[in-house]
Amino acid sequence: MKRQLIRHHYPRSGPWNRVFYSTKKPAKNVSPTTPATMTSLVSQRQDLFMTDPLSPGSMFFLPNGTKIFNKLIEFMKLQQKFKFGFKEVITPLIYKKTLWEKSGHWENYSDDMFKVETTDVEKEEYGLKPMNCPGHCLIFGKKDRSYNELPLRFSDFSPLHRNEASGALSGLTRLRKFHQDDGHIFCAASQVKSEIFNSLKLVDIVYNKIFPFAKGAADTDNNYFINFSTRPDHFVGDVEVWNHAEQVLKEILEESGKPWKLNPGDGAFYGPKLDIMLTDHLGKTHQVATIQLDFQLPERFDLKFKDQDNSYKRPIMIHRATFGSIERFMALLIDSNEGRWPFWLNPYQAIIIPVNTKNEQQLKLCNALQKKLRNEEKANDMEPVALNDWHFSADLDIRNEPVGYRIKSAILKNYSYLIIVGDEEVELQKYNIRERDNRKSFEKLTMNEIWEKFIDLEKNYK
Amino acid sequence: MKRQLIRHHYPRSGPWNRVFYSTKKPAKNVSPTTPATMTSLVSQRQDLFMTDPLSPGSMFFLPNGTKIFNKLIEFMKLQQKFKFGFKEVITPLIYKKTLWEKSGHWENYSDDMFKVETTDVEKEEYGLKPMNCPGHCLIFGKKDRSYNELPLRFSDFSPLHRNEASGALSGLTRLRKFHQDDGHIFCAASQVKSEIFNSLKLVDIVYNKIFPFAKGAADTDNNYFINFSTRPDHFVGDVEVWNHAEQVLKEILEESGKPWKLNPGDGAFYGPKLDIMLTDHLGKTHQVATIQLDFQLPERFDLKFKDQDNSYKRPIMIHRATFGSIERFMALLIDSNEGRWPFWLNPYQAIIIPVNTKNEQQLKLCNALQKKLRNEEKANDMEPVALNDWHFSADLDIRNEPVGYRIKSAILKNYSYLIIVGDEEVELQKYNIRERDNRKSFEKLTMNEIWEKFIDLEKNYK
Repeated sequence: MKRQLIRHHYPRSGPWNRVFYSTKKPAKNVSPTTPATMTSLVSQRQDLFMTDPLSPGSMFFLPNGTKIFNKLIEFMKLQQKFKFGFKEVITPLIYKKTLWEKSGHWENYSDDMFKVETTDVEKEEYGLKPMNCPGHCLIFGKKDRSYNELPLRFSDFSPLHRNEASGALSGLTRLRKFHQDDGHIFCAASQVKSEIFNSLKLVDIVYNKIFPFAKGAADTDNNYFINFSTRPDHFVGDVEVWNHAEQVLKEILEESGKPWKLNPGDGAFYGPKLDIMLTDHLGKTHQVATIQLDFQLPERFDLKFKDQDNSYKRPIMIHRATFGSIERFMALLIDSNEGRWPFWLNPYQAIIIPVNTKNEQQLKLCNALQKKLRNEEKANDMEPVALNDWHFSADLDIRNEPVGYRIKSAILKNYSYLIIVGDEEVELQKYNIRERDNRKSFEKLTMNEIWEKFIDLEKNYK
Repeated sequence: MKRQLIRHHYPRSGPWNRVFYSTKKPAKNVSPTTPATMTSLVSQRQDLFMTDPLSPGSMFFLPNGTKIFNKLIEFMKLQQKFKFGFKEVITPLIYKKTLWEKSGHWENYSDDMFKVETTDVEKEEYGLKPMNCPGHCLIFGKKDRSYNELPLRFSDFSPLHRNEASGALSGLTRLRKFHQDDGHIFCAASQVKSEIFNSLKLVDIVYNKIFPFAKGAADTDNNYFINFSTRPDHFVGDVEVWNHAEQVLKEILEESGKPWKLNPGDGAFYGPKLDIMLTDHLGKTHQVATIQLDFQLPERFDLKFKDQDNSYKRPIMIHRATFGSIERFMALLIDSNEGRWPFWLNPYQAIIIPVNTKNEQQLKLCNALQKKLRNEEKANDMEPVALNDWHFSADLDIRNEPVGYRIKSAILKNYSYLIIVGDEEVELQKYNIRERDNRKSFEKLTMNEIWEKFIDLEKNYK
């Protein structure tokens, strides 16, 4: 129920007049705008990203794009640490060929990995990492592990590189450099079920609760569906173990009540997996989150833990990411929101506009609110900015332009809130505040009421 | 005034019995422990870092090391964004040789840069970046810039790589992969003075106010001194411009009242610089922060802005980092604190110890406090963890060991607070809380009093 071409709020020239949407009518057949095109349009309008031919496939995140990226990571770190028991690690980006041979990547993945030369006497090549798993295996294997350390859950936000052909690169969805909200869980067989259950819980929080994705093609109450991929013809390990793992996954899927499809024979060679699929507004599906069982890497790295009976056992490894590629996740967010970011993610949270830019009382009221919302310290004293405080992106438009022009220009940037100050506001010492998505209605609020309202929005990821 | 060998609090075996210090007496000649050795000792004790021969010179940050690293970055981002007007960007890690030729790095720095191969048809080599400046120049140059955008301040926390010989690698002080709290300021000539003044203000906040470095060899109220390096024999640019810039730097140094030394002829070929020097406990100085004027890169990248008179002018570029290498900064913190992290940085903030681990009332009181302090959400519901909330690292020791043993073991880990619960505490419904650095005194506090005390400590970077 979205996307209709609207032009009446926008100027007829500029890059914006080509495609605009409102939330009023369905428009599946109206626009052929792909996620990549939409990313590029929104990026131009909001100064989010840029690319340069000197580094094809690596996105430059401009300050506004960086704000969104950092907020996504902050959100994810909080959930992983304080709800799902992950421990974050920071790991190297380059490793000797020996590691990639051990992990199997050199054999199976070598063409997709960037090679790095060093001046080491051994002349051994290095690989720029395409994934974090072997590094996490090194950490697990570095010391004796006991059953009471399990499940041991590592998270990692390292930049990853894959040597995509330059012709295949596209927007934020296919890059050479990208980031994952990556995590690896080392656990005992008996813990697999609850770990996967919790991984699906986080998927649910992200895709059904926090992020405003439009309902996908799945045509259910869920914005996603799950691809369940089972044992391929070429596999490693024991058929019994595979069967048991697939049985566990199937039970979880059935208990979860989530829409899922069987993808027989499409699992990884090292284990079965669940891929969470999101549908863009053109109906194309994209893999976002993934949850993969792995019996292979623990074997290759000879990982073990001492069990309660003092015997050494092999842990099972679960690879999981919830956003998946954070860059691709952002592209799908943009496909879905067309630049109308929810308040907590919006680099354009609020703009304050005095009706008359020459009126000192109006300006004073505007400045006071901006200062309060940005909550900055003065550069010339020794007072540091404190941890865990609120700072909002509140701009002030005092350009020498008619108020109507400044309002239109703010709407174009997709500010979440427009705050207007005229004579009436000066008299009341209140602010006229309008929501982006509900332009006809407005409220008159005091400075503190706006401050509290904004905190409440961010606290609730609105 | 620090470091005396003490053994009485520590067991006689284990890796800890070799070197231990208290804050009671000066011990300049007692211990030859270098920062690298101290890092390694503290890391063993507190599980901070590990290395692996498969990636020499790249440190693995274990969960506790990552906590400290992330807190340092969080602190710095807050200061840069909300006090000093920086905008964070995220930039590529690999760039074509063309970029490095343009910046001059290929000519001057090529041996220190890792080369990356791609399968691009052009067969052009890439370099893994040793510094962020050329990437920031690309961003500045990407669009028309006006005087009213200046000073434009970009910050960047990218991982950087330098191809150090494997024999030269040492602890956290000389690595192949490291991070800087890097920033580049693009400004007009008239803005240089206030930008440098503000950069020094941040240096002061870090080295004199927030971080508990011991007073250095500078023998003043400052923990650091400044090396002022002027025009070298081999330089580029106009002598007039150099002279003016050096004059400005000298005026700032004199106004600042900070201890500084002239290093004639030791500036970079592109401009004069101020290096902030810290002294370790053995009297060796280390460069930490740096503030460098650069007239060269804006020239090479043909950067310009439209001034008020509509003419195009060349901006001046200031390279500055306050921690410098974050890894080296951590090594110097450890050299100075020997693992006794201030509360806000400590991965071991508090440990809760019931006197009798079989006493249910004691256990109940302990569990309630741990739950309050960690402030975690349950994994099995849909409630997300909110932004900007407090979460403390509070552990619980209910091992089946005598209370004295558990207290000693907590002291060894350098917990900031030991919280003991016995029968008396159960009766009072209060906790017996002792400070690490003031073991003889204790307080009896309620759960909420501890919560408020901890928030107050973190808010004030104590």
